[in-house]
Amino acid sequence: MIREAIYHRPKNNFAYTYDKETLHIVLQTKKDDMQTVELVFGDPYDWQADVWQSTTKPMVKTGSTALHDFWFVEVKPKYKRLRYAFICSDDQELCVYGEDGIHETPPKEIASYFCFPFMNETDIFSAPKWVKDTTWYQIFPERFANGDEQLNPEGSLAWGSAAPTTTNFFGGDFQGVINHLDHLEELGVNGIYFTPIFKAYSNHKYDTIDYMEIDPQFGDKETFRKLVKECHQRGIKVMLDAVFNHSGYYFPPFQDVLENQEESTYNDWFHLWDFPVVTEPAPNYDTFAFVSSMPKLNTENQEVRDYLLNVARYWIEEFDIDGWRLDVANEVDHTFWRDFRRVVKQANPDAYILGEIWHDSMPWLQGDQFDAVMNYPFTNGAINFLAKNQMHATDFANSISKVQHMYPKNVSEVAFNLLDSHDTPRILTLANGSLDRVKLLYLFQLSFTGSPCIYYGDEIGMDGDQDPGCRACMEWDTSKQNRDLFHYVQALIHLRKTVPLFGNGGTFRFLYADNNSHTIGYEKNDGTKRLVFLLNGGEKETSVLSSSIFEAGEKINEWTISHNEDGVSIQQVDKLQEQLIIPALSYRIYDITK
Amino acid sequence: MIREAIYHRPKNNFAYTYDKETLHIVLQTKKDDMQTVELVFGDPYDWQADVWQSTTKPMVKTGSTALHDFWFVEVKPKYKRLRYAFICSDDQELCVYGEDGIHETPPKEIASYFCFPFMNETDIFSAPKWVKDTTWYQIFPERFANGDEQLNPEGSLAWGSAAPTTTNFFGGDFQGVINHLDHLEELGVNGIYFTPIFKAYSNHKYDTIDYMEIDPQFGDKETFRKLVKECHQRGIKVMLDAVFNHSGYYFPPFQDVLENQEESTYNDWFHLWDFPVVTEPAPNYDTFAFVSSMPKLNTENQEVRDYLLNVARYWIEEFDIDGWRLDVANEVDHTFWRDFRRVVKQANPDAYILGEIWHDSMPWLQGDQFDAVMNYPFTNGAINFLAKNQMHATDFANSISKVQHMYPKNVSEVAFNLLDSHDTPRILTLANGSLDRVKLLYLFQLSFTGSPCIYYGDEIGMDGDQDPGCRACMEWDTSKQNRDLFHYVQALIHLRKTVPLFGNGGTFRFLYADNNSHTIGYEKNDGTKRLVFLLNGGEKETSVLSSSIFEAGEKINEWTISHNEDGVSIQQVDKLQEQLIIPALSYRIYDITK
Repeated sequence: MIREAIYHRPKNNFAYTYDKETLHIVLQTKKDDMQTVELVFGDPYDWQADVWQSTTKPMVKTGSTALHDFWFVEVKPKYKRLRYAFICSDDQELCVYGEDGIHETPPKEIASYFCFPFMNETDIFSAPKWVKDTTWYQIFPERFANGDEQLNPEGSLAWGSAAPTTTNFFGGDFQGVINHLDHLEELGVNGIYFTPIFKAYSNHKYDTIDYMEIDPQFGDKETFRKLVKECHQRGIKVMLDAVFNHSGYYFPPFQDVLENQEESTYNDWFHLWDFPVVTEPAPNYDTFAFVSSMPKLNTENQEVRDYLLNVARYWIEEFDIDGWRLDVANEVDHTFWRDFRRVVKQANPDAYILGEIWHDSMPWLQGDQFDAVMNYPFTNGAINFLAKNQMHATDFANSISKVQHMYPKNVSEVAFNLLDSHDTPRILTLANGSLDRVKLLYLFQLSFTGSPCIYYGDEIGMDGDQDPGCRACMEWDTSKQNRDLFHYVQALIHLRKTVPLFGNGGTFRFLYADNNSHTIGYEKNDGTKRLVFLLNGGEKETSVLSSSIFEAGEKINEWTISHNEDGVSIQQVDKLQEQLIIPALSYRIYDITK
Repeated sequence: MIREAIYHRPKNNFAYTYDKETLHIVLQTKKDDMQTVELVFGDPYDWQADVWQSTTKPMVKTGSTALHDFWFVEVKPKYKRLRYAFICSDDQELCVYGEDGIHETPPKEIASYFCFPFMNETDIFSAPKWVKDTTWYQIFPERFANGDEQLNPEGSLAWGSAAPTTTNFFGGDFQGVINHLDHLEELGVNGIYFTPIFKAYSNHKYDTIDYMEIDPQFGDKETFRKLVKECHQRGIKVMLDAVFNHSGYYFPPFQDVLENQEESTYNDWFHLWDFPVVTEPAPNYDTFAFVSSMPKLNTENQEVRDYLLNVARYWIEEFDIDGWRLDVANEVDHTFWRDFRRVVKQANPDAYILGEIWHDSMPWLQGDQFDAVMNYPFTNGAINFLAKNQMHATDFANSISKVQHMYPKNVSEVAFNLLDSHDTPRILTLANGSLDRVKLLYLFQLSFTGSPCIYYGDEIGMDGDQDPGCRACMEWDTSKQNRDLFHYVQALIHLRKTVPLFGNGGTFRFLYADNNSHTIGYEKNDGTKRLVFLLNGGEKETSVLSSSIFEAGEKINEWTISHNEDGVSIQQVDKLQEQLIIPALSYRIYDITK
């Protein structure tokens, strides 16, 4: 038994209030080290020194990484408070792990136990309910559709007539989006994430000039209002991109600094190092990365705070948008995000706050700042295993299990799970052109816990390399669209909406991962039903023992994703083969009732 | 090498901004497992895949618990952002630990590294500067001094004429405190923590009736204003006790609930389960513990919030108090405490916020809620080792090291370190009457990192068992006071103020802990000077090899705590004995210059 590998600490992913009655508790131990783990617990004010004789509950192993197992238990403390410890056993010995360390037998002193002092309702992490049931569609407005040629920026090229570059324009706009909402409705998505739409200099608009104005190439405020209304009529939510970490070069306060230097009244809007402020050869002020045209905003300055919080409020109150995606969210101070949450939720308690963070984001997901982050650890795993074939199946299962146990369950349920974006190559390109791989990626993404997002054009088979390649004009000529892929994605989205276990219902768990065949199996289980997915990411047919997947007496249906009104063809399995064959780069799905 | 025992996670005690330029990073490994640990790091936007070839920094082992070592390093990233990993080596192998797990060699992908995205100044934990230099004195007002007999509650007993009970009164009041401020000034303390002073029913006043009124037995607002002024004139800060988790039974809103039941407009001020609300045989509403006369306040209700926040503001703005000690702070919601901090710091940016939490308090010490907590893990260790002789020296060193590494350094520097309080037996009683043990306890407490607190009367040798025994009337007859102990404590407080290394300067580190002799050695080290303390908690004389304590070429002075104006007699050590003798229940202190 490796006692040094046992880890727990309350009030994060290891212990949290899932809902007002339920406490979730997780323990980390060395992989395959313990045979059983039990929670021993009691009320802090009705403490019995022999608590372990009566109040224990077994914990369940819910996942593993390369080095660790995770054990889970749910408790509903009558008085909403708990002191607890863990009894860990292997076949030889037992130890008890509490806040003050490891004991040979359950300690008597209450101070030796971990404490969850009170389950206050207001501290419970709670994202808007609709997010769990949302499939997003990311639109890069300059490249989705051109609906009003009169708005085209000077020098715009004909739609799709050239490869995208970092500087060219094709005239995408809001009218174009409105004209094509049928496409989105047909696909079944019910949320749009727009990359920035505010007045800016570049084609990507991440270099904001005016946070209170729509970029004229996209239309005016009336067109945007109409767009939001039309989306809402179709049950589609609208999320905008808030670039609050830095402004653009042409943001008037920054221009004022450059012009007036020491005399500028905006000096405290940025992090200036000294005077004169210069942009060349290197900026002498804090920037995004090392980009001199993106000066970092001083969000600790109350004026800047008030300005940006007003922006946050304005677009919700005036245009009824449903969420904010926060660019470079990890580099802005936590105190600003706490104020931001207060302002946003006051304006609309049902608004979604999504942070762009590429790494472990627990400090932003305690309930006081964001509702979710962009789940890049999910992305990395999915791409490396299913698209690039560069990761072992076990490593993939470990990495996905790690993501799952890195956050509370109510956080994972609204995680923004993406396969690609305007910042990465498109999935078809990442999959080296293999549509079969793309289909496996979508199957995994759309059956996984969270809130998935599809990057515009991927659903019809567009390809494209790292930015700017991934930002090509949307292909609207249906004869050039991959309609088969479209219908496949459509079917998966339909299943997500109509079959709770396919979407956010039940608990996700890996059944196996096999490196030789490059195959994984996982299930979604709600206690009475389970959906089992077997994915073969390898180039060869393979098989798995059906007795390792099914239990005696289960009623089994096999599913095939199909272009019909259910999204799936269902076939009852009367007689199980001993081996379940999974063709190369393909899948098998089973719908199982106990 | 036990890779499973390696642990790190940013944005808590493992990685935090110590000041606006400095990042502190800590790694946990299995005890005695690694020979060296190095930090490998780089700027996230100037990422070199071969970062480990140039930018590494060795980490230093700063402490251990029974199972783990802690490794520490300080970095000053030029652009205030860092990606990093840890290179751990023993004599046989090497591994690299990053956010995505363990690697055999330093990974190239930036996503494998931990991220500290930006050191925003506003997120830095910052307690008021004066707290580091404060020695507190805790006063239980009913029992400190009776200065105005006219205010005595009906049935008050003559001062000190009876043992304290849970219900008797002796008439302690503010005028009594004012009359005896000379005692505090002479002792050298520069902060008073008053247990509750607001209108309440009991003698301990934790059952508040009116948060906006002084309890009439203590005086009126004018007397309190005078008390605060007199304290400030003597350089003494004043901290009050805020009992915001629950009210008292006679709190008018609760009385209104009991009287008007369903019709009461105060129903949402509490957590009522059903009607009729009853207090007997058991309360049907949330309470403190199971005490029906202490109904838990619903701090999620905006009216309650506004009421309590107004209380917090009022006593700062109107009476210039310097801090709030928060009773049962862990059971109140985090969102309330965030609002509380905002209100308090707006009223006085220099006010101290101290939470009563008995367990691991990291979730309240991120900079957004409290400045400190009452350091009971420190208390438990010190009492069990030095007072009760019930803990091994190594266990003591492990437990103190654990507390030290449980929080960021800037948190530990203002931790409220107490030996006892109105909630525990007095230290002389805990030490079974041994004044020698009490002296060792004070030496340890007053030379340790943090903000120490002395419970009224302990300094003159009062004893007393668990509440109510520990709440006896202060002994003002100097012939019955232990003046020797008083002068000893006075000397230690003086040293704390005049010798930076004795107080909060330098870094605390155990030098050794010996279970046989019940002895510990520790140092405070600022890089050029060090103070070494050898404490013998055992009943026999013992010795330690001087070569294990001193290095060649050091200039050594030995200190003896003395009743003189320096607080210490200093003797130069010209010739070191091979063995340093430490008498039973005694100490040796060395002041060492390199």
